[in-house]
Amino acid sequence: MLSLLPSFLCLAVIALHPVAAIWPAPQSFTKGSQVLYLHQNIRITYNGAFVRWSSSREHGCLAEDLDTEYWMSQQVPYTYGYSPSSLTSKEVVQAAVSRTLAGIFNSKFVPWQMHKPGSKFEPDLAQGQKWLQTLQIVQTGEDQPSAFKPLAGEVDESYNLTVSAEGDVQLTAVSSIGVLRGLETFSQLFYQHSAGTFWYTPYAPVAIQDAPKFPHRGIMLDTARHFFPVDDILRTIDAMSWNKMNRLHVHVTDSQSWPLVIPALPEVSEKGAHHPSLTYSPQDVQRIQTYGAQRGVEVYFEIDMPGHIGVVSLSHPELIVAYNEQPYYWWCAQPPCGAFKLNNTGVDAFLKTLFDDLLPRLAPYSAYFHTGGDELNKNDSMLDEGIRSNDSAVLQPLLQKFIDTQHARVRAAGLTPMTWEEIPLDWNVTMDKDTVVQTWLGGESVKKVTELGHKVIDSNYNFWYLDCGRGQWLSFDNGAAYVIGYPFNDWCNPVKNWKLIYSHDPTAGLTEEQAKLVLGGEVAVWSETIDPANLDTLVWPRASAAGEVLWSGRIDPATGQNRSQMEATPRLNEFRERMVLNGVRASPIQMMFCTQGSPKECEYPA
Amino acid sequence: MLSLLPSFLCLAVIALHPVAAIWPAPQSFTKGSQVLYLHQNIRITYNGAFVRWSSSREHGCLAEDLDTEYWMSQQVPYTYGYSPSSLTSKEVVQAAVSRTLAGIFNSKFVPWQMHKPGSKFEPDLAQGQKWLQTLQIVQTGEDQPSAFKPLAGEVDESYNLTVSAEGDVQLTAVSSIGVLRGLETFSQLFYQHSAGTFWYTPYAPVAIQDAPKFPHRGIMLDTARHFFPVDDILRTIDAMSWNKMNRLHVHVTDSQSWPLVIPALPEVSEKGAHHPSLTYSPQDVQRIQTYGAQRGVEVYFEIDMPGHIGVVSLSHPELIVAYNEQPYYWWCAQPPCGAFKLNNTGVDAFLKTLFDDLLPRLAPYSAYFHTGGDELNKNDSMLDEGIRSNDSAVLQPLLQKFIDTQHARVRAAGLTPMTWEEIPLDWNVTMDKDTVVQTWLGGESVKKVTELGHKVIDSNYNFWYLDCGRGQWLSFDNGAAYVIGYPFNDWCNPVKNWKLIYSHDPTAGLTEEQAKLVLGGEVAVWSETIDPANLDTLVWPRASAAGEVLWSGRIDPATGQNRSQMEATPRLNEFRERMVLNGVRASPIQMMFCTQGSPKECEYPA
Repeated sequence: MLSLLPSFLCLAVIALHPVAAIWPAPQSFTKGSQVLYLHQNIRITYNGAFVRWSSSREHGCLAEDLDTEYWMSQQVPYTYGYSPSSLTSKEVVQAAVSRTLAGIFNSKFVPWQMHKPGSKFEPDLAQGQKWLQTLQIVQTGEDQPSAFKPLAGEVDESYNLTVSAEGDVQLTAVSSIGVLRGLETFSQLFYQHSAGTFWYTPYAPVAIQDAPKFPHRGIMLDTARHFFPVDDILRTIDAMSWNKMNRLHVHVTDSQSWPLVIPALPEVSEKGAHHPSLTYSPQDVQRIQTYGAQRGVEVYFEIDMPGHIGVVSLSHPELIVAYNEQPYYWWCAQPPCGAFKLNNTGVDAFLKTLFDDLLPRLAPYSAYFHTGGDELNKNDSMLDEGIRSNDSAVLQPLLQKFIDTQHARVRAAGLTPMTWEEIPLDWNVTMDKDTVVQTWLGGESVKKVTELGHKVIDSNYNFWYLDCGRGQWLSFDNGAAYVIGYPFNDWCNPVKNWKLIYSHDPTAGLTEEQAKLVLGGEVAVWSETIDPANLDTLVWPRASAAGEVLWSGRIDPATGQNRSQMEATPRLNEFRERMVLNGVRASPIQMMFCTQGSPKECEYPA
Repeated sequence: MLSLLPSFLCLAVIALHPVAAIWPAPQSFTKGSQVLYLHQNIRITYNGAFVRWSSSREHGCLAEDLDTEYWMSQQVPYTYGYSPSSLTSKEVVQAAVSRTLAGIFNSKFVPWQMHKPGSKFEPDLAQGQKWLQTLQIVQTGEDQPSAFKPLAGEVDESYNLTVSAEGDVQLTAVSSIGVLRGLETFSQLFYQHSAGTFWYTPYAPVAIQDAPKFPHRGIMLDTARHFFPVDDILRTIDAMSWNKMNRLHVHVTDSQSWPLVIPALPEVSEKGAHHPSLTYSPQDVQRIQTYGAQRGVEVYFEIDMPGHIGVVSLSHPELIVAYNEQPYYWWCAQPPCGAFKLNNTGVDAFLKTLFDDLLPRLAPYSAYFHTGGDELNKNDSMLDEGIRSNDSAVLQPLLQKFIDTQHARVRAAGLTPMTWEEIPLDWNVTMDKDTVVQTWLGGESVKKVTELGHKVIDSNYNFWYLDCGRGQWLSFDNGAAYVIGYPFNDWCNPVKNWKLIYSHDPTAGLTEEQAKLVLGGEVAVWSETIDPANLDTLVWPRASAAGEVLWSGRIDPATGQNRSQMEATPRLNEFRERMVLNGVRASPIQMMFCTQGSPKECEYPA
């Protein structure tokens, strides 16, 4: 009997002080323990004007809930040079209010998974309801034209949120994107009562001041090794917005496939897509970008080059070397290899046509365009009849010229170029200092790039590659190769679990000056063994761990120390339930015994 | 150009010789390259009698497709002592025929994922259709009463399947379960034509002789650390039947929760379930067992004891020691600990009531009942006021008596007991030789158990634990524990990828006599971090790899060597597509470039 007492005491404490699981953690957060109820007729204003909201599916949380007719009315016909002027601050906020309230009312989150079975954790309805009166949204600044396609730092995402004991909610932000972030936080204060149609927060009064640590908080999705239908991408954007993540980097082509329809070069996707049904039309691209912009998630694209582009050989064989050369490991990291010829006027003409078509369509909702540049194998140019060399002294000037030319085109379209780290670090290609460099090799890469004066997006594969650790996709024969391959782990084994992801700070080991150049980071979803069947379960909630590092910072301002797994775990458990209830198949991180009000029992040391 | 030629040649060869991806591989399989079409009006007979089949959802492949009204008509009202006599061979075969044909016609498997983009892999409809004429099913034996609840080896699952060039299909089997296995193979011969409502096999004439290597081919599902709704279990049974797996072992209770409703002891699940909605009623249990029996999947249950049963403390605290003791690692492997008192008449009375209620309900569709027995910690009995000792010499006789008593009850109910390996190997408890022992610790465990003369089910955690490798569920503080825990891998890291699973032979290193005692194996789905959100993606197709080892054997009779990953990979790719199209979210094992007629490029060495 003695042994049972502590857990009962613990239960009582937990029931009195629920976890208030805002994810990612706000910079500053105080709360009380008063219960306030949310009614569908709460008075909502935006800069003083009354806001109507709709609980219908048209503003629902998930892409799959979108009413097609509504969606079509939001579509702008596809034209070259399409302007984003139709996206107004008011429309963005209005839609966000509807999504927020519909999310609270529709997700049916009665949080029994977070409390001991049989415990009384809900307010007593018989004691009457004190209702929230108003939700006053005040945007103190005017959105700049860049608000929906910002460069890192161009948009102020901060917000202040207060819920008074009297039931008045004040949400103040400089930008409409800040309003969106605040509304997301607001929604996470609420639960549904098991008795039915009552929704409440037990945390009043609330005062939150919040702003992101890093301006670039992203996911990279590889749509070339497996295709992801538009709905999967929209659902991913939804979940990103719940995590206050703001950059979706679409690695849209690679040597394996070219799903992107280019009207000026229709043959590239006709020959290069895995199947005619597995393509992104210009309308799809616009829909994805607009959907993101409406949720504060900037969608930008990467055409990886001059390596990782072998698929172009299927439509333009004269432009490519080493496509599907055997054995692949002489020529690239992965079949079917293939790189642009580095000194070929045909390549340049192809890219002019490609960029003239694509970039003006992307620019209305992107500030960036990623030109790739990882893993270019010098041997490829041995097969190039115009070069026949793998000597860096020969290749470097050609690559320099290639990058100069293509980046000039990117800039001419009003976009800022990005590359992978090998371009400056391995090839010593010089680029304008505003070029953003994405690191992935870990170690000293971030430091080296900042020493060159470039801005950095970090995707350290030892921490933030979500595809790792589930085994080889290569098949090994029964002979010597079998022995070499056994036990068939992949190159970046093990799986990066959420705690490992959470332990990574992209600015670790940097000087203050160097750290200023780190814009943020991206978790990477390379898709050798990921497709729509397992996308959600592998991305969520692991991406949430990176999302909190990037929004809240690795250091907890309350303690001055690294954020604690023990503090984060119950919050992530609760946030994961919210994601699942809103239609994203996020994986569990603990057994239900641990989530149900027993976090202490599931800590080490106990 | 030179480099491109080999791959074009390769394409031509592949298009002429499609993979015929039967999974698991039949013992003997010859095929031709003639196309035959399947029409919905094919004449089907079972032992000479005409068989009507229905393509309606009522016989659909998936649990979720089940028509409720139909299901209710198949339900036998819940009564104690319910007899399985209502399950007739004819009904089982009839339903399987309907599922098979509905699966072919409804799954819409146009296998473009298995062929190079743009390649011509389909028969030319303009050349006319040669139709399958008849499907003659002949069952040469009469089903024994044990056919739908066999002990290992009691039912003959072999079958012969021929498809003649003239379009006559002959399926011969000794038992109705053999007929089911043959029908599953039959269904895997067919594809849908992209032009629409044409279904064909390109492999005629076909001759298959097939029989399982091991009689026990299972999955263990832990429903205590996370609950799985009945639909998830039924869907898992569906997928098992496609894989010719025949045992679902439900680890239904553990210290974390007790979801099983016991009418004679209602308080146990009332206090012990995670939530009132997360329980299995007697009707649920019967539905799961019946659903399995109809598909040749025997569902048997485990109540783990005398350890791993702490949850009983919530309703019967007087029976349990060490429940939720801190720190857990002094008392058990995982919170919240808890074991039966080993020398307590109350425990025995509780188990009599439990078994008197439960076992007669399980016996109609189970041959086995698993009494657990893993990881009993000797220290627990230090807290037992009736023992106060952790001395094996004191505890062993008590455990011997406990096992003797409970196994006698299991046998009295007509069931054969199973235990985990620790009972005979660590505790030296002697048991009747027909008791089946499940091994999990690898190494010499299988050998040792056979040396004791017991039959073995192998679940070597180094190969067949599907939960491993995705990280710690324990939270670590920021001090010394953090350093100890980093990088937060779990105890059985890494993930067991399908190739590693495929490499494991439960009889490796045994003498021929010892090997005869190995009934088969089970992959284990311990559910610390698995719940309905990620169940399918983690189980499939990895369980398929074990399924093939268990059905087809680790050795390929055609070569006398271990089965080759290179041979298996394209078959598993194709079978995985079939699973996905039938509603199971099986994970991809290769990028689509590899599945699309480029297996050679994705082999090492190339």
